[in-house]
Amino acid sequence: MNTLPIQFSDIEAAQKRIHNGVKRTPCRHAQLRGLDLYLKFENRQETHSFKERGALNKLSCLSDEEKARGVIAASAGNHAQAVARHAGRLGVAATIVMPEGTPFNKVARTQSYGAKVVLQGDTFDAAQQFAQKQCERDGLVWISPFDDPLIMAGQGTLAVEMLEDWPEIDTLVVPIGGGGLISGCAVAAKTIQPDIEIIGVQAALYPAMKAVLEGKAAPHARGRSLAEGIAVKEPGVLTRQIVAALVSRIELVSETEIEDAVNLLLEEEKTLAEGAGAAGLALVLARADEFRGRRVGLPITGGNLDMRLLATCLMRGLARTDRIVALTILLDDVPGGLARSAQVIAAEGGNVIEGQHQRQFGGVTGSQVELHITVETQDGAHVERILNALREKGLNVLRV
Amino acid sequence: MNTLPIQFSDIEAAQKRIHNGVKRTPCRHAQLRGLDLYLKFENRQETHSFKERGALNKLSCLSDEEKARGVIAASAGNHAQAVARHAGRLGVAATIVMPEGTPFNKVARTQSYGAKVVLQGDTFDAAQQFAQKQCERDGLVWISPFDDPLIMAGQGTLAVEMLEDWPEIDTLVVPIGGGGLISGCAVAAKTIQPDIEIIGVQAALYPAMKAVLEGKAAPHARGRSLAEGIAVKEPGVLTRQIVAALVSRIELVSETEIEDAVNLLLEEEKTLAEGAGAAGLALVLARADEFRGRRVGLPITGGNLDMRLLATCLMRGLARTDRIVALTILLDDVPGGLARSAQVIAAEGGNVIEGQHQRQFGGVTGSQVELHITVETQDGAHVERILNALREKGLNVLRV
Repeated sequence: MNTLPIQFSDIEAAQKRIHNGVKRTPCRHAQLRGLDLYLKFENRQETHSFKERGALNKLSCLSDEEKARGVIAASAGNHAQAVARHAGRLGVAATIVMPEGTPFNKVARTQSYGAKVVLQGDTFDAAQQFAQKQCERDGLVWISPFDDPLIMAGQGTLAVEMLEDWPEIDTLVVPIGGGGLISGCAVAAKTIQPDIEIIGVQAALYPAMKAVLEGKAAPHARGRSLAEGIAVKEPGVLTRQIVAALVSRIELVSETEIEDAVNLLLEEEKTLAEGAGAAGLALVLARADEFRGRRVGLPITGGNLDMRLLATCLMRGLARTDRIVALTILLDDVPGGLARSAQVIAAEGGNVIEGQHQRQFGGVTGSQVELHITVETQDGAHVERILNALREKGLNVLRV
Repeated sequence: MNTLPIQFSDIEAAQKRIHNGVKRTPCRHAQLRGLDLYLKFENRQETHSFKERGALNKLSCLSDEEKARGVIAASAGNHAQAVARHAGRLGVAATIVMPEGTPFNKVARTQSYGAKVVLQGDTFDAAQQFAQKQCERDGLVWISPFDDPLIMAGQGTLAVEMLEDWPEIDTLVVPIGGGGLISGCAVAAKTIQPDIEIIGVQAALYPAMKAVLEGKAAPHARGRSLAEGIAVKEPGVLTRQIVAALVSRIELVSETEIEDAVNLLLEEEKTLAEGAGAAGLALVLARADEFRGRRVGLPITGGNLDMRLLATCLMRGLARTDRIVALTILLDDVPGGLARSAQVIAAEGGNVIEGQHQRQFGGVTGSQVELHITVETQDGAHVERILNALREKGLNVLRV
């Protein structure tokens, strides 16, 4: 381990530097679906993510001359707020470059810590390029989101706390974007408990670290992931060395699996995790058989999820679990069709939450209408009862 | 105080009885909108509400003969799960009567603790009447949701814990349905700290306790409240004596205020409260000036909120805060109208999330179409920029 970019002593040093400015978040044992989980609630940090650990460690190590120059970072997310907050606390001028179109509340929050926010570029990549130029031009100090030994060491304090609270943890499942968190955690955990297994998780849409370690080119990113926080196209150069050495494997989770994990944390633990924050749980749930009997440490890495995305995620979850169902009923276009359908559904205890008539497309004849109806239901058996009741009344119904 | 239905000694006795079976939930200081709040997270109980405190206290006091007879309760909500869980733990047979149409997951959860669930009656009142008859017929022990000294004393343990953790609390704001929680909390808090002010909160749709104490008849309930847990038509007879004696006033909160509080707890505290659980915060936020400078204890009484209701609540909150806006654009019904509108909105950074054409109703002529469009925006100023840009391009746009 002593050829790696960081050592356990770096993490111990980070602990001493940050413990006054970063919360020691609670780590709670939870049984979900028969699995023994130890959830570390980094969504309870002041800026709602673990990123403060690395940011504060890095900022604490700047020389007076560097502090006077000021720092710059590119981020539309958790790194932005973490750098802004701790630069503000330490009296260091911070510039945060965010892509244009970054939601107003993220901008406002970052500014509220005293940082100067520059909105520049259509994409994150463009914002980052702009930030790097500005960094050189103005002689600022660059605060990397992950590929810096001080950032990695700061993030490693998370695993130290987990294993102090729960020494029985035998597996750590950690989300990977750039790899900063898992690098720090792996060095810490493998030092404290050499037998622990460290498993990485990436969103299937952004499997860059896995690809790189398998010797493939980082694949083209394909669309937006709910797990924005780990939607990283190019993993760190330092972090990948540690991941290659200490992480037993990297697994991928689908968007649906991530959504299910976000929903489960909300329903069962009453806590809001962002997509990246739920990615570890997503893997453990998707492969429950493999993790049963293990004592799995899961950092809930952050809780900054857009409320509209959350609402969509909840509704999609209800649809997947038969608590909302979309039906199409083909009717003759005469009075009474809607009434008859609605009556049958109501009698079976279904709650209609949306309805629409369609007369133009598909196999509908000129004297027919297609009724598209969305119904709130109790479970799959309830859906079947409603379908059967509609069919018994002679209604031609299809489940969408 | 010694003429009241319960004494502080009853609450101390309850504490001894329940501390092994009910969690001592965390109570955390939080600054929200410049207010000093002390949030007690009863949504973190095993069944996600404070109701376990009273239920376990009551069940623990049953004689062996009563335990052998078994217990019965009517509830579609938190009381059901609380009774089911602790009856199960103590090996007492429990029957829970729920109205027909109770969501499957609530039924399943209650059954999972070993209770027998009977679905009966269209409404809660009908279910309750059925349960009372069954109770007499079968010689079962009735477990009241609030109007029982042992239930009230059990709920009072919540305030004891809060004031042990934070003796500086000078105001307690407690939601009122039947009045069990506030009765116990008021006796506890006024004993521990006689100067504390106890304020009750009711949903404006269900102001029964307030009406009764003002000598009015309990008003007819008007529709469904998000705060189901305190949507009680007839407050307790015992509880109202304590409320009359120790609670300085009862205030009402609107549905919108409750929704705002649920949303704020999720966005800022990353915790899920049900409507009733957020009612206290709703009051404090709605009258922030009045509570500024006070140290306000707020029990977050429960976290069992239906996921579809939550999704609706989130979307309504976004609409109220200009993060979603509905526009109507009147166009000539020729190619290019949608494209032109969408282009302007996109250029201003608005994200269209829904669109619909309407040709039949209102002032639309035969050659016109009304475009109904829903746009995700950043804030009020962003909405204004979009409206102005549309108007500059000659588009006839109205905000809905």
